[in-house]
Amino acid sequence: MTKIRSMITCLLRLIALAATLCATIVMAAAHDSTEIFNLKFEAKYSNSPSFKYFVIVNTVVSCYTLTTLLIPHKSLLWRLILILDTVMALLLTSSFSAAMAIAYVGKKGNSNAGWLPICGQVPKFCDQATNALISGFVAILIYFFLLLYSLHAALTPVFCAKD
Amino acid sequence: MTKIRSMITCLLRLIALAATLCATIVMAAAHDSTEIFNLKFEAKYSNSPSFKYFVIVNTVVSCYTLTTLLIPHKSLLWRLILILDTVMALLLTSSFSAAMAIAYVGKKGNSNAGWLPICGQVPKFCDQATNALISGFVAILIYFFLLLYSLHAALTPVFCAKD
Repeated sequence: MTKIRSMITCLLRLIALAATLCATIVMAAAHDSTEIFNLKFEAKYSNSPSFKYFVIVNTVVSCYTLTTLLIPHKSLLWRLILILDTVMALLLTSSFSAAMAIAYVGKKGNSNAGWLPICGQVPKFCDQATNALISGFVAILIYFFLLLYSLHAALTPVFCAKD
Repeated sequence: MTKIRSMITCLLRLIALAATLCATIVMAAAHDSTEIFNLKFEAKYSNSPSFKYFVIVNTVVSCYTLTTLLIPHKSLLWRLILILDTVMALLLTSSFSAAMAIAYVGKKGNSNAGWLPICGQVPKFCDQATNALISGFVAILIYFFLLLYSLHAALTPVFCAKD
């Protein structure tokens, strides 16, 4: 039972690693440019603090996930993993939501604030950012499943003991 | 020990309820208007999907927190609370980050995207939105402490049993 549990956890962590790595690389490489009135306008992730935050968080979570895959199963560090998993899930959710809010304004604009959509001018950048956001969302889902799985595993003996 | 634990949890939930209620009311009531070239421009939370999401999530979490305060301590529903607390913490983080990303553009603008800051025109709205975001952040911190406290309480017997 313990072996199956650690295999499922390991598989989920591998998918999470792939998703966060993919989100980081695709967002960091997203790039497009256009000319408006002879002025060159370049779109890249570093133009927006929210997209920078998204790249930084996905890089940190990638490193963390890789580390958890390398920790021996009998290490005492596993006592901290559930808490650190929760922190990583919160960071992933935070960076995804901030990037999503800005991507939405980039796509639809906000007429009340006078912010025009930019995706018509830099469609390649918008498509790549969308793909990065999809990867980021997959990473959140996987981390959520990991949390649910770990919570279930951690709580079952406590509840059983109370019954 | 159980009595002290439930008193601390109850106190944290009361502070979280106050913070989410405050965030909801202040953001929903935030309002300012200005005239540009004889056109009246009105700033309110419903102009931005991110601010609407912030208000909805804080309302939902307020209702949830109130419900948890009313559940009898011997109810079987407490088995679900740790998982639901995690979901609420993720929702709070998500809505805060999305609203924060938009508030940042409202304050500083984004010259690369051609989005001008609006806080110079509607300072009252920006101040009220900032206060709502501070309340939202307090709610996130409290929910994070609640999670850490519950995780510690749930995990301690498991770890002790393994020693």
